[in-house]
Amino acid sequence: MSQEQLIQELISTLGADVVLRGADVPERYQTDWSGTPPQQPLALVRPRTTEEISAALRLCSAHKVAVVPQGGMTGLAGAATPTQGTVALSLDRMNSIEDINSQTGLMQVQAGVTLQAVQEAAVAAGMVFGVDLGARGSCQIGGNVSTNAGGNGVLQHGMMREQVLGLEVVLADGSVLPMLRPMIKNNTGYDLKQFFIGAEGTLGIITRVLLRLRPAPKATATTLVAMPDFDTALAVLGRMQSHFGNSVAAYELMWDSFVQASLSWLKLSAPFAERHPMLALINVDGKDEAQLQDDIQQVLEEAMEAGEVLDAIVAQSVAQAQQLWKLREAPAELNNHMHPAINFDVSLPQADIGRFADACEAAFTARWPQKHSLYFGHVGDGNLHVSVDGATVNGECDAVEAELYRLVGEFKGSVSAEHGIGLHKKPYLSNSRSPAEMAAMRAIKRALDPLGLMNPGKVFEL
Amino acid sequence: MSQEQLIQELISTLGADVVLRGADVPERYQTDWSGTPPQQPLALVRPRTTEEISAALRLCSAHKVAVVPQGGMTGLAGAATPTQGTVALSLDRMNSIEDINSQTGLMQVQAGVTLQAVQEAAVAAGMVFGVDLGARGSCQIGGNVSTNAGGNGVLQHGMMREQVLGLEVVLADGSVLPMLRPMIKNNTGYDLKQFFIGAEGTLGIITRVLLRLRPAPKATATTLVAMPDFDTALAVLGRMQSHFGNSVAAYELMWDSFVQASLSWLKLSAPFAERHPMLALINVDGKDEAQLQDDIQQVLEEAMEAGEVLDAIVAQSVAQAQQLWKLREAPAELNNHMHPAINFDVSLPQADIGRFADACEAAFTARWPQKHSLYFGHVGDGNLHVSVDGATVNGECDAVEAELYRLVGEFKGSVSAEHGIGLHKKPYLSNSRSPAEMAAMRAIKRALDPLGLMNPGKVFEL
Repeated sequence: MSQEQLIQELISTLGADVVLRGADVPERYQTDWSGTPPQQPLALVRPRTTEEISAALRLCSAHKVAVVPQGGMTGLAGAATPTQGTVALSLDRMNSIEDINSQTGLMQVQAGVTLQAVQEAAVAAGMVFGVDLGARGSCQIGGNVSTNAGGNGVLQHGMMREQVLGLEVVLADGSVLPMLRPMIKNNTGYDLKQFFIGAEGTLGIITRVLLRLRPAPKATATTLVAMPDFDTALAVLGRMQSHFGNSVAAYELMWDSFVQASLSWLKLSAPFAERHPMLALINVDGKDEAQLQDDIQQVLEEAMEAGEVLDAIVAQSVAQAQQLWKLREAPAELNNHMHPAINFDVSLPQADIGRFADACEAAFTARWPQKHSLYFGHVGDGNLHVSVDGATVNGECDAVEAELYRLVGEFKGSVSAEHGIGLHKKPYLSNSRSPAEMAAMRAIKRALDPLGLMNPGKVFEL
Repeated sequence: MSQEQLIQELISTLGADVVLRGADVPERYQTDWSGTPPQQPLALVRPRTTEEISAALRLCSAHKVAVVPQGGMTGLAGAATPTQGTVALSLDRMNSIEDINSQTGLMQVQAGVTLQAVQEAAVAAGMVFGVDLGARGSCQIGGNVSTNAGGNGVLQHGMMREQVLGLEVVLADGSVLPMLRPMIKNNTGYDLKQFFIGAEGTLGIITRVLLRLRPAPKATATTLVAMPDFDTALAVLGRMQSHFGNSVAAYELMWDSFVQASLSWLKLSAPFAERHPMLALINVDGKDEAQLQDDIQQVLEEAMEAGEVLDAIVAQSVAQAQQLWKLREAPAELNNHMHPAINFDVSLPQADIGRFADACEAAFTARWPQKHSLYFGHVGDGNLHVSVDGATVNGECDAVEAELYRLVGEFKGSVSAEHGIGLHKKPYLSNSRSPAEMAAMRAIKRALDPLGLMNPGKVFEL
């Protein structure tokens, strides 16, 4: 049997400590944070080097056995969960920070290093890394690149794609693409690394990443601002950006539904005496903290006079800023308080987010009058998160999904802003992609993975 | 004859005013600024709409006749020059700015609009566009995207790629990829638009572009700084960035050879009493011009005390800033003063640029003791330009090129930082790309253009 032969060849080539057989594969390699039912792979390979990955892929290719690349298993779309008869290939042993240079602002890492390790190394070198998200302690850079991760820093620094200067990638046939040249400008034919960013492991395995770091801000100030509605929230964002430019580092909008859930789940005291339709947590970078606080105060006063801001707190200490940011931490509690949580991560043309949220709320209420739903998001980037408590919609989770994604299509939005497609959003991909685009994606897939062995069944069917 | 039939079908489908036959094709469509010998195409098509481009490509595809997309014809690598028996397809009639929104900071344009028109529309809307380069009045956005143009704004805003939020592209078979969704975050499968940025028209024709605009700086200050050597120049750049962060908008380094040529060709008076090994033109953005000038003065004083800066001028008016920037305009005069000018546009790992320039100078001097060569560049981006006067190297232009590109390979640099590969750098592409990368590029090309009809013979041979 070819599968048995493949396992024997993997063991004899890579060593028994690198290859685990199906029954021996620990549970953590069988599913991710998406809630996909666990699936035992044929085998788990945990290589230590690019050469070992290349050898493993050559063998899998020879036996026509598919490979599922795995990072920190924190994905929310199921892209890293094994499917039956596949070899899971985990990057978790490739976790070295290979080089960091504060003069050039570049860091080269193996793909299995955690986001948090990257962030900490950047800070130790007097810089910062531009991407941050809740799973930082577990998620790996290779996975962040493969899903083109977003998070809290996008407004200022862009998505993961904009932090990536180079990649090393192993293709399905085992060939290695060395694309780690440390140059911002390099127009020598197709920028191949772009193809693998956000491809969710369907075109190759990312083994090394050359990252761009950003100058560390000298000071950061945080404010929590109450506003009457979404359009006003956009006006306040515009006002802040017009005053502080690219120094506006975060603009996290929370509808009151979200704020109330956060206060209750995290046992926080209400920041304002009154409830308000919408709160925004805003970070602004600058040179001097006291000066920054004064400047923010002044802009907010103008916004209050204009009727845009109803109330506001400017944090006077790091501790107070951290306290304000706790309000944004409800997502970590979703699975404890919603049974189950039906979570959405969508993008809309920025100006339409408010109308979209209203349309969802109206549609949900019409069908499930008891429904409990929350709205929040990185609104500066056009990204809205919605969570619905499955227990309050008669367990009709699929119908909730179908309804929301129908509205995304209607509003010409994206069914996945930052979590990717994986397994779970495949049915809805065509809401955001035309047939011509789907055909082009399939052509690219066949070009780089002609046998269809890289993470098959994820993102789209061939 | 199939070619004759194709022309007849193009005329009957698109109209005689859209299709010109070979002998009627004006000279400006026969070559670009690269100095490639003019070549009459089989025909020139100047469509007015995406639909006309789609129809033209369907016909060309049916007759298996290749197509050369053309923008402003300002390219320096020959990518837009026709080759024998091809149909040239100019975007110059598709020059509408279709939408601009200062709240979302987005502008949608047809591909044939000039860079300068985009810049002016952005300013009129209270924003700025992030890319600027000398050919702004003639070059077109579609060409800027197809070559992933760089220029003066890269340090702050990134390359053209980072200004592009969406594209509309017509593939060789006439199918249209609508990728114009106005969302920063959109992880729904492969980010197909990335494939066409920098592809020099070899994968499809860009017909529309959705551009990101940037907030307009409230004030900009300019300084000209004299320094003893390259490593010090990098230290000064680091010092400026550490103080001003991403507000350092330009850092243009000029070796003395370049400065002297500029003074002489443009009849400028010397900015400093003494000659210095290196001058840098630096722009910094901020909120208040006087404050900014003071801050720069202070940073420069610290740098002078540290021995990094030998002399400096901080412009006290816009007119003085413009006068200082004139020093950087020698490139426009290269072809008038060098016979011929042998121009290079290369990238190096930033820290190695000084040693690379020294190595070139030594290698040139050893073989051509009379050689006249200039060094300058967007050094903050790792980009170096070198120009050599062909008349001072016994006309051995090819040997000069071979020597410089050999050194680029040795220094692990890029043979094209921002001008692309086109026709002229094809022989040297392998100095910057591995065989595995070349194979992947060819696979992508075959996937999206199976008949090889899009700008054949440019960038690489299939």
